[in-house]
Amino acid sequence: MENIITSKDNPVIKLYQKLSSSKKERLQYGLFVLEGLRITEDALKEDSGITHLILTKRAEEKFGQQLFQADLRDTKTIVISNELGNRIASTDTTQGVFAICRIPHMPDVLHLISDGGRFVVLSGLQDPGNVGMIIRTADALGLDGVIMSGSCELFSPKVIRSTMGSVFRMRIAVENDEDVLFAALAENSVTASAAVIDKDALPVTECKFEGSQAVFIGNEGNGLSPETAARCSRKIIIPMHGNINSLNAAMAAGILMWELKK
Amino acid sequence: MENIITSKDNPVIKLYQKLSSSKKERLQYGLFVLEGLRITEDALKEDSGITHLILTKRAEEKFGQQLFQADLRDTKTIVISNELGNRIASTDTTQGVFAICRIPHMPDVLHLISDGGRFVVLSGLQDPGNVGMIIRTADALGLDGVIMSGSCELFSPKVIRSTMGSVFRMRIAVENDEDVLFAALAENSVTASAAVIDKDALPVTECKFEGSQAVFIGNEGNGLSPETAARCSRKIIIPMHGNINSLNAAMAAGILMWELKK
Repeated sequence: MENIITSKDNPVIKLYQKLSSSKKERLQYGLFVLEGLRITEDALKEDSGITHLILTKRAEEKFGQQLFQADLRDTKTIVISNELGNRIASTDTTQGVFAICRIPHMPDVLHLISDGGRFVVLSGLQDPGNVGMIIRTADALGLDGVIMSGSCELFSPKVIRSTMGSVFRMRIAVENDEDVLFAALAENSVTASAAVIDKDALPVTECKFEGSQAVFIGNEGNGLSPETAARCSRKIIIPMHGNINSLNAAMAAGILMWELKK
Repeated sequence: MENIITSKDNPVIKLYQKLSSSKKERLQYGLFVLEGLRITEDALKEDSGITHLILTKRAEEKFGQQLFQADLRDTKTIVISNELGNRIASTDTTQGVFAICRIPHMPDVLHLISDGGRFVVLSGLQDPGNVGMIIRTADALGLDGVIMSGSCELFSPKVIRSTMGSVFRMRIAVENDEDVLFAALAENSVTASAAVIDKDALPVTECKFEGSQAVFIGNEGNGLSPETAARCSRKIIIPMHGNINSLNAAMAAGILMWELKK
């Protein structure tokens, strides 16, 4: 008979909760967590190193058949009570599908940009929802890579959830040292444009994007730092209207990526 | 000496909480609520019919001077304890600035579009964050109006918060009857385009947007209903890439509004 785990002291459940709440634990174990059917399916499809699949009894009945079609040889599956599922869930209406996943090997920035292409650099972005939405949009629009610099942690549950699975498909590099980042861009002849709110900046409608390009997006509240903007080859602006002087950072990034790629 | 309200049974506090949690109460009283310094300032600037300004003791000390510069003749200001502020707040880290506001008179759709222009129609959108972000983006990009049809309630606290004050600047009409909506569009020679995920649709990169235009954006999960799409003059698509077959609804709307206006 199947063993249904009900105790929060189960070692896998304890690990899940640690990874869910602590960046330090994620880094130490090299693991992160997923919650939700669709993102777990995406991870299974992309062969993304799921070590543990955790299903509530209800989720096993409802989704087991479709999930068990994936290759689960390297995955340990455990079934937990619905109550325990509610306890570890981050949402009020959980589907009861959870996973622990190995943090994948990520390319360094030099490797990411070495073949050229169109890139977005997230410089100092702190809102996990914005970061996730930008990665999702970069995937949808076909960017060649996302570079994170001084931004929030990629493997936090909130970022992962907002990427809607694109974190498993998009090429992403983290480079917090701007000297290294700008040297890599220069070495690969990637033109760096700073997205700013500045009347003297070049309207993106007049921008020519030729060759390899990287657009720097700044922090939600404060924009791109003047120091970072000054290191870019040019400043660009999305022409805006009326009383509002700033789009949401993810929306601004989306429009700029659209212009980069179309 | 100043009277600091500490009781949740204070009639203004009770009204605030009712309006915060119930659409029915909002409709019945013709009032809705705001939370946060910036949006409250925006409302005061736009002369938006604030009936009550509610500040915690801490918020009064910190923001009182700047808020009291506005014309508050028609506004009753009350000061509440910090504890009561935490109790009525919708966020964990409230600024302690709350307001009750009259639901403004809204134009009907015929009036909204009668001078022509560029419009977006939200058809069946249910996520308050998406609706708010689209209104904010429409304001930033200078659209001439937003039409809501079968979408979530505009004056819910979540929609209002995500508009970041644009709800007070943007022209918005609600028209849930599609017969009325399409008749109004036809009467004013507004071309209706349906944003869909459909390989036979016209790529937006090949679209000419001439004259008056309205783009229909569909539900987050299911897209635009086939019936609604069929009533539009044409189907358009944002060309997408790779494994993902859908942008977030707000992001898709943002890119389409950008193309409409630039």
